[in-house]
Amino acid sequence: MNMQFADRIVNLEPAAVYEILKHTVGGKVIAFAAGNPSPDAFPAEEVAELSSKILKENPITTLQYGLSSGYEPLRQILYTDMVENGGLRIDDNELLITSGATQGIELCAKIFCNEGDTIITENPTFIGSLNSFISYNANIVGVDMEFDGMNMEKLEEALKREKNVRFIYVIPNFQNPSGWTMSLEKRKQLYALAVKYNTLILEDNPYGDLRYFGEHIPSIKSFDPENIVLYAGSFSKIISPGLRVGFMHVPTPYFNKLAVAKQASDVHTPLLSQMIVYEYMKKYGLANHITKVCDIYRHKLQLTLEGLEKHLGGKVTYVKPEGGLYVFCRLPDHIDMREYCKNALEAGVAVVWGNAFLVDPNEKSQYFRINFSSPTNEQLVKGLEILGQVFDNMA
Amino acid sequence: MNMQFADRIVNLEPAAVYEILKHTVGGKVIAFAAGNPSPDAFPAEEVAELSSKILKENPITTLQYGLSSGYEPLRQILYTDMVENGGLRIDDNELLITSGATQGIELCAKIFCNEGDTIITENPTFIGSLNSFISYNANIVGVDMEFDGMNMEKLEEALKREKNVRFIYVIPNFQNPSGWTMSLEKRKQLYALAVKYNTLILEDNPYGDLRYFGEHIPSIKSFDPENIVLYAGSFSKIISPGLRVGFMHVPTPYFNKLAVAKQASDVHTPLLSQMIVYEYMKKYGLANHITKVCDIYRHKLQLTLEGLEKHLGGKVTYVKPEGGLYVFCRLPDHIDMREYCKNALEAGVAVVWGNAFLVDPNEKSQYFRINFSSPTNEQLVKGLEILGQVFDNMA
Repeated sequence: MNMQFADRIVNLEPAAVYEILKHTVGGKVIAFAAGNPSPDAFPAEEVAELSSKILKENPITTLQYGLSSGYEPLRQILYTDMVENGGLRIDDNELLITSGATQGIELCAKIFCNEGDTIITENPTFIGSLNSFISYNANIVGVDMEFDGMNMEKLEEALKREKNVRFIYVIPNFQNPSGWTMSLEKRKQLYALAVKYNTLILEDNPYGDLRYFGEHIPSIKSFDPENIVLYAGSFSKIISPGLRVGFMHVPTPYFNKLAVAKQASDVHTPLLSQMIVYEYMKKYGLANHITKVCDIYRHKLQLTLEGLEKHLGGKVTYVKPEGGLYVFCRLPDHIDMREYCKNALEAGVAVVWGNAFLVDPNEKSQYFRINFSSPTNEQLVKGLEILGQVFDNMA
Repeated sequence: MNMQFADRIVNLEPAAVYEILKHTVGGKVIAFAAGNPSPDAFPAEEVAELSSKILKENPITTLQYGLSSGYEPLRQILYTDMVENGGLRIDDNELLITSGATQGIELCAKIFCNEGDTIITENPTFIGSLNSFISYNANIVGVDMEFDGMNMEKLEEALKREKNVRFIYVIPNFQNPSGWTMSLEKRKQLYALAVKYNTLILEDNPYGDLRYFGEHIPSIKSFDPENIVLYAGSFSKIISPGLRVGFMHVPTPYFNKLAVAKQASDVHTPLLSQMIVYEYMKKYGLANHITKVCDIYRHKLQLTLEGLEKHLGGKVTYVKPEGGLYVFCRLPDHIDMREYCKNALEAGVAVVWGNAFLVDPNEKSQYFRINFSSPTNEQLVKGLEILGQVFDNMA
C-alpha cells in the first residue's frame, strides 16, 4: 500500500501538551498542564435550562441544517455586543460563527496562505494555532516575546526579510503560554508596521475578558482604520469549551471566501451549541458571568502567586499576570528545564516545558508553564509545594 | 490593501444549490432543491429528553474540553454497531467522530492530497464534496456515471492516465444527485482497480440506511482485505443534520494523522451533540427510527413517482431509486435544461440543474434533480403538477 501523506501533514504531530495530559488521566498527578476552564466556572444549570427551552420551543430549527455563516440571532447579538461593549467598529455582515476560535484561525491559514507563505507569530505562542499553521505548510517565523509583547525591532526585521508575509498572529491579552500582555504602545507600533509592510494582523483574543487586575487595554481591532485586522473570539473560556462556539471577524472583502471555506469544512457549527450561546447572551448577558468567572480565577491566581513566592521565591522568575490562565516561570540557567519538568511529573505535578510553545521546539527554553484555572485550590497549594521541593532537590 | 487569497481558495464558490435555496426562503416557492431531511423524521422529543438527562447527570463532561478522536462511549457503540450490524471488519481504534461526514471528507483531502494531486469522482457527484476537494486545489477527475455506478472502462483509463491519484471518491448507495446505486459487481471491479493501481477508495455512505425497496448491497468496506477503504458515515440523515455528527473510518496507519488534522481544525466535535447521538443509540438503537424514517420517505418517493408518471410520463426519463433522497430526471434533447429549471422556479418550484453537480459545471447536462424528502406530501403532489405544466408549455 502506498502510505503517502500530503506534504502539509508530514510534520504535523500531536501537541506536546496533549501528550503530557495523558499522564494526568486517573487523577494521581496534579495537572498544571492543561488549559481547561475550572468546572466551577461553567454555567451548567443555565445551559441545561436553556437547552430544554430550545429543544421544546424550536426543535426543527435546532435539528435541521443551518446557514454556514452561523445562527442569525447569535450573529446579531454578538455584533451588538462587539460594537456596544467591545467598542469595535465593524460591519454586521463580517462575523462568522466558528466551531471554536481554533477553526477561525485554521480557516484564516487556509484562505490566506499558500504553502510556503509566511505567518509571523509571537515566540513562544499557542501550540494549537502553530499546528493549524503547520497543517497548511506555512513558513512560520517566530518573533521573540518580551514582557510587554513582541520585540518590535525583530518584528520589523522579519517583515523586511521574509517573503509573502500573509499575517502577523498575536494574542495581545494574557498570552498563551506567557501570560504577558501587549502594551498599548506596542499594539500601535505593531499596527503601523503591518500597514507599512502591507500585511494583515490576526488578533486572537480568547482571554481578553479574564482580567483580574489592572486596566483594560483596547484591542487592536478597535483602532483599525485600514481594515486589516482579522479577529478571533471564543466562548470557550467564558461559557464552555465543550460546546465549541467561537467567532471570526474579517473585513468585508474577505468574508465570502471565509464563509465558503467554512461551508467546505463542516457546513455549519452545530445549531444547539450556537442557540445555547445565543439564549445565554439574551437572557443573562455575559457581564455577570464574566465577573463570577474572574472572581474564581483571581483567587486561584492569588493562591498560585502565594505558592510561588513561598516555595520558589528567589528561585524562579515570572511576571505576575493580570489575567488569563497561565503563569510562565523561568528557571535559573544552572537548572536543566526538561529535567525539572520530568522530575516534577515523577513527583506528581504536570507542567508543560517551555520549548513546546516555540516555533522550533528544538530550541532551548528555561521556561515552564503553569495553568492555574483547572486545578482545585487544594491542588494549587499542594502542587506548588511539590514544585518547590523538586527545585530544592535539583539545586 | 493586499487582497490576495491562497490559490486553493480562488476557485471556491458557494455551491449553486445554496444559491437556489435563497429563492425558496419565505415559503412561496416549493423547494425540491434542498437535501434536507423531513422535519417529520427528526426524533425531536427523544433528543430533548436525552439532552436534559445529559446536562443534568453529566454537565462537566459535556461542557469541558474533550478528546479530538471523539466521545469514547460513542466511538465504542458505533464500533459495535458497524461490526455487528454493518458487517465491517474494522479495528476499534480507527473511528474518528467528525462534525458531519463533510468534515471527514474534507480531512481526507487535507491529509492525502498535495495541491494538484488527483481525486477521481463519480460525475455527477455531491457538490459539498467537490467543494471540499476544490478547497485543497486537487485535480478532480470525473468518471461518467451509469445507472449501476461508474463506467469501469473510463475509470481504468483515468487511473492509467492521471498522475498521483490519491483516492477514488464514491457514494455507492442512492447517490447524490442521481439516486443511482452501484451494483455489487461494480463495487468489486472498483475495488480490484484500486488495488491494481495502488490507490485508496473513499466510500461516502450518508444514505445507506435509507433503503425503501430492493435488497441491501454490501458496502465496499465490508470486503477490504487490503485495508484501502476510507469510510465516511453520518447521522445527518438518520437523527439530525443540525447536530453535525458524523464519523470517519480509516485504516490504522492513517488514523493518527487524521486525528491530529481534526485537532488542528476544530479540536473536537461538540460534546453535547456527540452525547445525544450516543445516548440515542444506547437507549433506542437506530433500527426502529430508521424503519420510521424509511416509511416516511418511501411514501414520499411513491408520491413523487406517481406525480412523475402522471405529469411527466413519457416526457422525462429517470431511474426509480430504491432509496435515498433524490430522483434525477433527464429532459429530452430538444428541451433546454437550464431554461426549464428557470421556468420552473418562476412557476414556483425550485429544482437543481444537473450541471451544478458536474466536475466541470460548464459542461452540458440534460438532467435536473428532485429532492423528495424536504417537501410536504402536498407540496410534492402540487410541485410535480407544476413541473408537468412547465414542460408542456415548453414542448
